[in-house]
Amino acid sequence: MATIPVAVLGATGAVGQRFIQLLEGHPLFEVVALTGSERSAGKKYREVCRWVLDTPMPAAVADLTVLDADADLPAQLVFSALPSNVAGPIEQRLAAAGHIVCSNASNHRMEPDVPLVIPEVNPDHLHLIPVQRRRRGWSGAIVTNPNCTSTPATMVLRPLLDTFGVRRMLLVSMQALSGAGYPGVPSYDIVDNVIPFIGGEEPKLEIEPQKMLGQLRDDTIVPASFATSAHCNRVPVLEGHLVCLSIELEQKATPDEVTAVLRQFRGLPQELRLPTAPEQPIIVRDEPDRPQPRRDRDAGRGMATVVGRIRPCSLFDIKLIALSHNTIRGAAGASILNAELMHAQGWL
Amino acid sequence: MATIPVAVLGATGAVGQRFIQLLEGHPLFEVVALTGSERSAGKKYREVCRWVLDTPMPAAVADLTVLDADADLPAQLVFSALPSNVAGPIEQRLAAAGHIVCSNASNHRMEPDVPLVIPEVNPDHLHLIPVQRRRRGWSGAIVTNPNCTSTPATMVLRPLLDTFGVRRMLLVSMQALSGAGYPGVPSYDIVDNVIPFIGGEEPKLEIEPQKMLGQLRDDTIVPASFATSAHCNRVPVLEGHLVCLSIELEQKATPDEVTAVLRQFRGLPQELRLPTAPEQPIIVRDEPDRPQPRRDRDAGRGMATVVGRIRPCSLFDIKLIALSHNTIRGAAGASILNAELMHAQGWL
Amino acid sequence: MATIPVAVLGATGAVGQRFIQLLEGHPLFEVVALTGSERSAGKKYREVCRWVLDTPMPAAVADLTVLDADADLPAQLVFSALPSNVAGPIEQRLAAAGHIVCSNASNHRMEPDVPLVIPEVNPDHLHLIPVQRRRRGWSGAIVTNPNCTSTPATMVLRPLLDTFGVRRMLLVSMQALSGAGYPGVPSYDIVDNVIPFIGGEEPKLEIEPQKMLGQLRDDTIVPASFATSAHCNRVPVLEGHLVCLSIELEQKATPDEVTAVLRQFRGLPQELRLPTAPEQPIIVRDEPDRPQPRRDRDAGRGMATVVGRIRPCSLFDIKLIALSHNTIRGAAGASILNAELMHAQGWL
Amino acid sequence: MATIPVAVLGATGAVGQRFIQLLEGHPLFEVVALTGSERSAGKKYREVCRWVLDTPMPAAVADLTVLDADADLPAQLVFSALPSNVAGPIEQRLAAAGHIVCSNASNHRMEPDVPLVIPEVNPDHLHLIPVQRRRRGWSGAIVTNPNCTSTPATMVLRPLLDTFGVRRMLLVSMQALSGAGYPGVPSYDIVDNVIPFIGGEEPKLEIEPQKMLGQLRDDTIVPASFATSAHCNRVPVLEGHLVCLSIELEQKATPDEVTAVLRQFRGLPQELRLPTAPEQPIIVRDEPDRPQPRRDRDAGRGMATVVGRIRPCSLFDIKLIALSHNTIRGAAGASILNAELMHAQGWL
Repeated sequence: MATIPVAVLGATGAVGQRFIQLLEGHPLFEVVALTGSERSAGKKYREVCRWVLDTPMPAAVADLTVLDADADLPAQLVFSALPSNVAGPIEQRLAAAGHIVCSNASNHRMEPDVPLVIPEVNPDHLHLIPVQRRRRGWSGAIVTNPNCTSTPATMVLRPLLDTFGVRRMLLVSMQALSGAGYPGVPSYDIVDNVIPFIGGEEPKLEIEPQKMLGQLRDDTIVPASFATSAHCNRVPVLEGHLVCLSIELEQKATPDEVTAVLRQFRGLPQELRLPTAPEQPIIVRDEPDRPQPRRDRDAGRGMATVVGRIRPCSLFDIKLIALSHNTIRGAAGASILNAELMHAQGWL
Repeated sequence: MATIPVAVLGATGAVGQRFIQLLEGHPLFEVVALTGSERSAGKKYREVCRWVLDTPMPAAVADLTVLDADADLPAQLVFSALPSNVAGPIEQRLAAAGHIVCSNASNHRMEPDVPLVIPEVNPDHLHLIPVQRRRRGWSGAIVTNPNCTSTPATMVLRPLLDTFGVRRMLLVSMQALSGAGYPGVPSYDIVDNVIPFIGGEEPKLEIEPQKMLGQLRDDTIVPASFATSAHCNRVPVLEGHLVCLSIELEQKATPDEVTAVLRQFRGLPQELRLPTAPEQPIIVRDEPDRPQPRRDRDAGRGMATVVGRIRPCSLFDIKLIALSHNTIRGAAGASILNAELMHAQGWL
Repeated sequence: MATIPVAVLGATGAVGQRFIQLLEGHPLFEVVALTGSERSAGKKYREVCRWVLDTPMPAAVADLTVLDADADLPAQLVFSALPSNVAGPIEQRLAAAGHIVCSNASNHRMEPDVPLVIPEVNPDHLHLIPVQRRRRGWSGAIVTNPNCTSTPATMVLRPLLDTFGVRRMLLVSMQALSGAGYPGVPSYDIVDNVIPFIGGEEPKLEIEPQKMLGQLRDDTIVPASFATSAHCNRVPVLEGHLVCLSIELEQKATPDEVTAVLRQFRGLPQELRLPTAPEQPIIVRDEPDRPQPRRDRDAGRGMATVVGRIRPCSLFDIKLIALSHNTIRGAAGASILNAELMHAQGWL
Repeated sequence: MATIPVAVLGATGAVGQRFIQLLEGHPLFEVVALTGSERSAGKKYREVCRWVLDTPMPAAVADLTVLDADADLPAQLVFSALPSNVAGPIEQRLAAAGHIVCSNASNHRMEPDVPLVIPEVNPDHLHLIPVQRRRRGWSGAIVTNPNCTSTPATMVLRPLLDTFGVRRMLLVSMQALSGAGYPGVPSYDIVDNVIPFIGGEEPKLEIEPQKMLGQLRDDTIVPASFATSAHCNRVPVLEGHLVCLSIELEQKATPDEVTAVLRQFRGLPQELRLPTAPEQPIIVRDEPDRPQPRRDRDAGRGMATVVGRIRPCSLFDIKLIALSHNTIRGAAGASILNAELMHAQGWL
């Protein structure tokens, strides 16, 4: 089968590199174009990219010439790893020009006609695409994936909401360094330390899950009605965001019932056997001290959400911890899975 | 003024070392005896102690001969850094023999006639001492300080409870390595990792604050009635336990009102100018990203609780973070401050 | 092809776990028996092993019953991950009883009739096996692999010695935490720190390379005659030992000549295409800041030695740095490659 | 006694902050002026400085208005924490205008008429000041301190050179993160890692010690003639540079003799009781695993060099390790001690 050409926007950054790493040898998609900053444009990728990942830079992209942000892209499908200070107008221009932009940037996530999608959670929200096209006069589209910390929480809430209902969730995150991009957090700030603040993060966690768990009615998402409060912290971990969740359910449930529901959960990506989909979207560990970022972030090749310590909460109903790999399931892998779903459903 | 001789039980462990470090040059107390395990007894302290702190071992104790647990101690006042698997009967024997045991061990904390005291929070609970003596026929006494993670939460709750009332608290901790003692957490488990579990810790956090914030009535503590739920995590930080708190108040209060109340809080140790008391028990920082364990744990020579990010909680009323040095304010310094209070009030 | 049954001695420790991980799915060898301490014997592996690696415990061994050290083993080929305080007599008993013991323990490495082998470096030293059998009256044999820090140095020296001759080597190591076993180095000792001492390590580095690079003459190894001096340090790195080498050659050579010789080096494992052999035993990186432990330790599935910064040394001739994965190429993988070579050459 | 007003150039950076921290409460010097980048100039220090040290920003400087690089400075004595890409012309302009510039920048260190001084090592090199003034027509002067890694090596070499003579030194460093300034090393690069390269560092180590240990003859420094080779590495340590040294002496000496010589070493700062001088410039530890960066960097309030593991080297004569606090003794404290010496000797 011929592969589908794709472009990666913002390819030299940390998330851009992760896109390139995950797309190496991808059965559907082939990277044919990269964009970078003005400073990089016109040079070979290997010359301008300070590659920070632990596997080698894929040979196939190393010699691609980096394009600038305004270039015409030789690919309908575009993955955006652009930073939010520049992503907005660039993504809009591309969508207007007919590109399907699968974006990890936060800029358009909360716009009413932009799908914010986790394929296991709300694949039907892709039906906002015609709404978006109609309203904006675009031939392409922008489809977004959530913030890296919203991901594990939303994944866990999907089956809980469907089975028991959810009233409230308190979330405390311990987030990995890679979430800050590269160079990101100075080492002098984080060795022997925790930074109990991540700019702009907590508000996202209090609205993104609600949108994703909302219902599409008459071309609009009606957000789920549960309330959320979040504390976000940066810890000296390379990859893998861990969240402590306390959840109030509408209908009482025991830890065993919650465990069973999470374990049985499967979504459309599993049914469609999408290439990047993990076998199980949620893996529940029984050990008292798991999941741990370093030991569990790569479960399902970084695409599974690992859950543990499901136990009663004396304030709400249930406490548990959940972990997702923040630059795979929480960023580049999320966009790729969205694109795989769109391909399977004929949007591409 | 002549100093008061004191003994340190369990002197070779991590908390024992912290006692010895903090008591060096203390204006009231002088270490004259140390106990250790059978293996250590009879040898000089410097021969058996693998000193792990960053300041040098005090010369005055280096040549003390370590006594075994059954030895007669040449000091009425005894600080206990014993591990909980042995502390129980040893501390009881000493109290029966007339010693005042200021203990960091968890064994007797929740017994109804044993004071569990933070001098700024519940100094009046020392009036359990005559109850304890009467009931047990002891001439000495056991007085305990709380778990290192209960400390920052309880310190913050004292003025909030008094001013606004407290209904519920959700606590998520990020705890330092030293809290596990020495050798404690293997480095292979914690580099690039978080361990989301600390054995036996969460239940303590759901009862100790209630006892300390309870009222002494008719020789009994009536625990405070607010509910607590805790998630405890170990992070790669040397010293300093950070807690994220979401608090439901009985009477609504703005972040500014909470800030003012915490800033104005002073306790008996400040009034009595006890040697180890920090000038302010609670320091509120205005920066968005403070307190941080490494940068704030030493505030007030490790005896202050540093609070920050006081903001509204969309589920409860108030969210904030608090930090205490876990082996100073949360362990050895806590016991010493208790002893200073007892000295000031004539219990010694 | 039928697989060859193997046993792993000391299977619950850090190196034992690495053997089990590397042997999962091995094309030649199949783990059929495990031994552990008295405390573990008689129980299932998954019950007694605190599995610390980042990939899951292989299902096939999880339910094996751990045998004690004296058990009869249902496998001729035995991998020993025993600690050196017990390895000596156990390994001897097994060799006497006809087992081929491929050992990572240091006990017998320097005995004159025991091969100390890196297959790329001195495969011919296996011819000590008949000497060993004759001298000791054994039907089996003990074959050892070197210390984890000797490995990268010796690998680099092999082609340099053959091409240019080597007079002197100064080695300074920065060694990973896993080299100390599990629980190993307490986290409280190593966060924000370096420990400039590893017990017993430096003397090994001053004799093991000489033995491996020595010549087998008349049933005896004549050690290579170059002199070595070593400084060994422990750094907060999970896996991967990095060594800084300054080397005096007998015949002058430029950095480019050294680079070419290292790049071209291939050994018998590459020629025989042994399953665990890396494609290139030595990978030379051109970047100024490589190899780095985290980013290069997994090169060649942990079996390559990665070299960089080949440059003139103003005291000797050449300076460079070299890195090997210490629990793969430096321990379990080394023993397995030795066994693969022995299988290929008909010793099994 | 009236204090001497001083200015700090480059006051917002990591070394600039260290100057301000060390000068708080200094008995001789008082910070009255600060300079910063164009972006900072005109604003209060506390508004533009991201303070990264673990003690609070001194209140006395917090409200100083930051001056730009071209400002007239209200202090003859100027400490320079400027980065080397801008330090050159600024420092020259100030010296020409009559200021005494005690500089931590590398720009002028190796110029023949610029003193490169460690007060314990080569206080007499200050006699280059009149040479410098004469040659350049300046009324002020530039006096420099060495690179942070040259410091511990040079300190150790001074008494060894004087007593035994030194022929060769091989140095391998493990350098702290703070040595790279702030933000410096990205955390994503260094957690679970070592970076075996520090740009521009190794050449400095091969010439600076020779200049400092050289002799002033006829207005010129004749460098010491020993040869040096260096490998420099960055390790995940906050503060404290550790160096492994192998030293060839001219006259043989035992480890005990070397130990005695290092222990007895005292310099002019000790004799003059300069305020920042440590009681002993070199502290020799007997434990097998010391010095360690975290546990020994603060010895002598960060101004002592701590030495350990003095032992025979099978290639050269002596091996040992030495540690200095890189931003105190190796940077800001070094400049301050130079200024104290200049004050004591009447250069100010």
